[in-house]
Amino acid sequence: MSEGPPLIALDKAHAPFFIGIDVGGTGIKIGLVDDRGQTLGWKRIETDVEQGPDAAVERISDAISRVIEEAGLSDAQVTSIGLATPGTMDIPAGKFLNPVNLPGWQNYPIRDRIAKATGKPVSFVNDANAAAYGEYWIGSGAEYQSMVMLTLGTGVGGGIIVRELNVEGEHSHGSELGHTIIDYNDDARLCSCGQRGHLEGYASATAVAKRASEALEAGRQSSVRGRIDAGEELTAKLLHEEAERGDELALEVILDTAMYLGVGITTFMHTIDPDAVVLGGAMTFGEHENEIGRKFLARVKEEINQRAFPTPAKETLVDFAQVGSHAGYVGAAGIARLAAKREPSSV
Amino acid sequence: MSEGPPLIALDKAHAPFFIGIDVGGTGIKIGLVDDRGQTLGWKRIETDVEQGPDAAVERISDAISRVIEEAGLSDAQVTSIGLATPGTMDIPAGKFLNPVNLPGWQNYPIRDRIAKATGKPVSFVNDANAAAYGEYWIGSGAEYQSMVMLTLGTGVGGGIIVRELNVEGEHSHGSELGHTIIDYNDDARLCSCGQRGHLEGYASATAVAKRASEALEAGRQSSVRGRIDAGEELTAKLLHEEAERGDELALEVILDTAMYLGVGITTFMHTIDPDAVVLGGAMTFGEHENEIGRKFLARVKEEINQRAFPTPAKETLVDFAQVGSHAGYVGAAGIARLAAKREPSSV
Repeated sequence: MSEGPPLIALDKAHAPFFIGIDVGGTGIKIGLVDDRGQTLGWKRIETDVEQGPDAAVERISDAISRVIEEAGLSDAQVTSIGLATPGTMDIPAGKFLNPVNLPGWQNYPIRDRIAKATGKPVSFVNDANAAAYGEYWIGSGAEYQSMVMLTLGTGVGGGIIVRELNVEGEHSHGSELGHTIIDYNDDARLCSCGQRGHLEGYASATAVAKRASEALEAGRQSSVRGRIDAGEELTAKLLHEEAERGDELALEVILDTAMYLGVGITTFMHTIDPDAVVLGGAMTFGEHENEIGRKFLARVKEEINQRAFPTPAKETLVDFAQVGSHAGYVGAAGIARLAAKREPSSV
Repeated sequence: MSEGPPLIALDKAHAPFFIGIDVGGTGIKIGLVDDRGQTLGWKRIETDVEQGPDAAVERISDAISRVIEEAGLSDAQVTSIGLATPGTMDIPAGKFLNPVNLPGWQNYPIRDRIAKATGKPVSFVNDANAAAYGEYWIGSGAEYQSMVMLTLGTGVGGGIIVRELNVEGEHSHGSELGHTIIDYNDDARLCSCGQRGHLEGYASATAVAKRASEALEAGRQSSVRGRIDAGEELTAKLLHEEAERGDELALEVILDTAMYLGVGITTFMHTIDPDAVVLGGAMTFGEHENEIGRKFLARVKEEINQRAFPTPAKETLVDFAQVGSHAGYVGAAGIARLAAKREPSSV
C-alpha cells in the first residue's frame, strides 16, 4: 500500500477534529484530521465490493472507532465525517447511482448508513472533488484563493474550488473536467464516456497509450516497439521509462499530452480564472525531481502561454500536486469541516 | 433608447435600496433598485468618452442624486452602489486597464472616484457579469441555484454564478465564456482576440456574418446574395430576416451558431453544472414569439442532448434571458447588495 502522510501528535489546540473517508474500488482509507488538515492517524481497509455495502459500512464504522481511540480522542471529540466516493452518485440524496468501480452497490444510501452507524453528520462528496479540496486545503493550493485540479490517471478527473466553494454542480456533475470538449469536430477522438473530443480522450493514461500505439502502427521508430513485441503492455509508465532512456516517440507522446492539457487549462483560465492550477494523479510523469516530469510541466505552461490571456497565463500557479494518495480523506474531512463551520447548530 | 423596466412605487418594506450603474461606450444607465431587484427609477446619460472620465463621474453623481430624489428617498436611505463597466479592468484595484470601448480612460480608478463623489461604498464588476447577475436575481435564473449566461452580440460574453457567488476570477478574467476553446486544431477559426478555436470565433454576430459570407463566396444559392449585391451589410439581423422569408442558407448559418453554442454549453455543464443556462444579448434570433428564435433554441438543446451527460442535459433549464437591457444596472445593484449583506459593518 502507498505511504501515508506524516502523523501529527494530538494537540487539543487544533480541535475540532474530523474523520475523512475515501472509498475506492479496492481499498477504503479512513483518516482522523485536525482543524489544520493534519493527520493524527489513518487506516486502510479492503473494500471487498462483493460482500456488499452493508458489510463495508460496518467495517468503516469499526475502523473509525479504532482510529479515534488510537489517537487518544473520545468519540465526542470528533465533530463530523466527510465521505468521498467514486461516481456516479446523487450528492443531495446521499446515495450512489451506478458507480462503475463498485458493482452491485448502485442506489445504496451510503451517506445516511454511515451517519446512522457512527451517530455523526456526514458530508458526501465526489472522490476527485475531495482530493482537490485536500490539495487546496493543505497542498499546492494552500496559499491560493481558487484552484482547478486535474487528476490524471486511467481517466481525467478534477475539482474546482472557488473561494472555499467546492463546485460539485447542481446535478452532481460539476468539475468533471475530463469531459471538457477541446475538439467539436466529428473526427475528434473518442472519450471513454462514448462522446467525442473530450480532454480525457486525449490526455488520460488510456489515451496516451492509444496515441503511442497508433504511432507505432504508422511505422514510427521507437524503443517502445521492442518491449511491446516482447509481450509488455503499452502503458504511460512504459512510455515514461523509454522517454527517460531517450526515445523520441515516447517523449513526443508525453509532451503532446501536456499540450492537450494546456488547451483545457486555457478554457479553465477563461471561465474560472483560478490563481492555482494543480496536476495530480498517477500520470504526472515524475514530478519535479524527474527530467521528464519537468519537461511535461514546462510543455503544459508553454501551451498556456501561447493560448491564454496574458495576465492569467503569467500570474496563475501551474504545478504538481503535493498531498498524494491521502488527499481524498483529508479533503473529505475538510468538506465536513466547512459544513460544520457553515451550520454549527446541525453538528 | 431602449425601453425601460416597469417602475415600482416606493415601498419602504422593500428597503434597503441600492444604486446600479452600467457604463457603456455610448451611454451610462443608472438605476435605483430595491431589495427585491425592482427598479424605482432610472436614467440614461451620455458617456461622452472624449470628455474624459472625471466629467463622466460628475454627471453620474448628479444623475444618482436626481434618481434618488425623484423616487422620494433621501440619500441616506441608499445603502451602496454597484458599478458595472466593460473590460479590460483590474477588479480588486477598482480601475480600468485598457477598455476597448472607452479610449483614453485607461488606468482610471473609477470605483474610488465614484465612491468619493457619492460618499458610498462601491462594488466594481464586469458588465457582462453584472448582466448575468441581474438575470440570476430577477430574470430567467431567479428560481435557480447556479446559472451560466451567454451574452451574444458583436462578441460572446458571459457570466457564471454559483450559489450567489459571481465567478469574476482571481485576475478579473472569470466568466470570459466566449474564449472557451471548442477546437484546439491549428486550422480552427480565429477569434477577435487573435487566438484560434474560441467559441466567440464561431458564435458571435461577427462570426455568423463571416460564415454566411464564406458560404456565398463558395457559390451557395441564397436570397441574402441579392441584398448584399444591393449594398447592404451582411449582419446577423439580415440573416434572421432572410431565414424568416424561408432562405435555407440563412437558417443553416443560424442553426450552426446554435450547434457551436451547444458545444460550449456542454463544457459548462461538465464543469460548472448549473441548473440554468441563459442566452441573452442582441443576437438571440427573436426569442420565443418568433419562429426562428424557437428553432435556434431548439437546436441549442438538441446539441446539448447529443453531447452532455444525460442528467444535466435533461434537468438544466436552457432558455432566453428575460431582463433585457437594464439587467446590467440591476445586476450591479445586486452585487452591491451581496457585498452589503456579507460585510454589513462596512456600509
